[in-house]
Amino acid sequence: MLKVFGMLQSGNCFKVKMLLTFLGIEHEWINTDVMKGESRTPEFLAMNPNGKIPSVLLEDGRVLSESNAILGYFAEDTPFLPSDRYTKAKVYEWLFFEQYSHEPKIAVARFIKVFQNMPEARKAEYEKLFEGGYKALDLMEATLSKQDYLVGDSLTIADICLYGYTHVADEGGFDMSRYPGIRAWCERIASREGYRDMNDQPRS
Amino acid sequence: MLKVFGMLQSGNCFKVKMLLTFLGIEHEWINTDVMKGESRTPEFLAMNPNGKIPSVLLEDGRVLSESNAILGYFAEDTPFLPSDRYTKAKVYEWLFFEQYSHEPKIAVARFIKVFQNMPEARKAEYEKLFEGGYKALDLMEATLSKQDYLVGDSLTIADICLYGYTHVADEGGFDMSRYPGIRAWCERIASREGYRDMNDQPRS
Repeated sequence: MLKVFGMLQSGNCFKVKMLLTFLGIEHEWINTDVMKGESRTPEFLAMNPNGKIPSVLLEDGRVLSESNAILGYFAEDTPFLPSDRYTKAKVYEWLFFEQYSHEPKIAVARFIKVFQNMPEARKAEYEKLFEGGYKALDLMEATLSKQDYLVGDSLTIADICLYGYTHVADEGGFDMSRYPGIRAWCERIASREGYRDMNDQPRS
Repeated sequence: MLKVFGMLQSGNCFKVKMLLTFLGIEHEWINTDVMKGESRTPEFLAMNPNGKIPSVLLEDGRVLSESNAILGYFAEDTPFLPSDRYTKAKVYEWLFFEQYSHEPKIAVARFIKVFQNMPEARKAEYEKLFEGGYKALDLMEATLSKQDYLVGDSLTIADICLYGYTHVADEGGFDMSRYPGIRAWCERIASREGYRDMNDQPRS
């Protein structure tokens, strides 16, 4: 069976779980705790030399890494990745935006605050993340104040990708009360049939 | 005509130029100097609110941003982006690797050293870029010491993408003598018919 190595509390892993769940793709989730070095073992590095989660082991033994490449792989030929060339490129535009301009601020702030419990040595770095983080959220809000989804009029992997860390940005210290469009979009996604939260429990 | 806003000395822009040149796609290059704030003017921000180059203005007035999303757009249905679902995902894996693990180290080191002339205030940050930068180059070398191209046996946008900043990594202070596989790969790409260097001059 398809195996996914990851930890659900990581937005990068959670977004893969979300897509697989929405698509109804059966898979085994192998909990891989980066805090315990489980992505740095010789076995893991033999699979993914970059030592990062999520990584996917396909049934034929081939491996895929990079969360957003994994999303693209499973979304291909489904409604989650439009086939029109321009629309597809706009989806990928958000995916690259997320990895370059969003995740390194918003996920890292949460990591330092929640997972590392705000060590003194990273405090200055933490404070510096907010300018870029709010800029990324402002850009999302500019779109989501006008439309229900980031690209087109239905849920795509652009939404799943950005939802991963945005819906827990408050845990990192971001004030989400500024962003009514983003909050409504989060609710829209979380109320979708089949949605399960980061603890992998039905939301009820 | 198709318009591309960028500066060729930026690897992110150069890779778009490379692909368009290899594909023989006619375009107008609008030189946009970020050092002079030309990506922050009201006109530019109306086109791309993220204020980043490269940005592409298609003939019908639609806009594309994010260098690697632009590569995917133009490479679709060409040999530069394989149509097989897994192989395509491996190409995107390199594209996301580049934006997350490579560019923020290797491009930023070059930017601080060459474009900012190594300001004292960024020296500590500059020094810290080498650990991650060498790790990214090590990962490339592990593949390129075994095969001619990053994915499959011909040039794809994975190569074009990574070539952008790798071929000028030495300008940022990286010692490329450690990487015979990468250097041979750079030569392979630069000797390809139609290749033009960052100064947009034929190489020979």
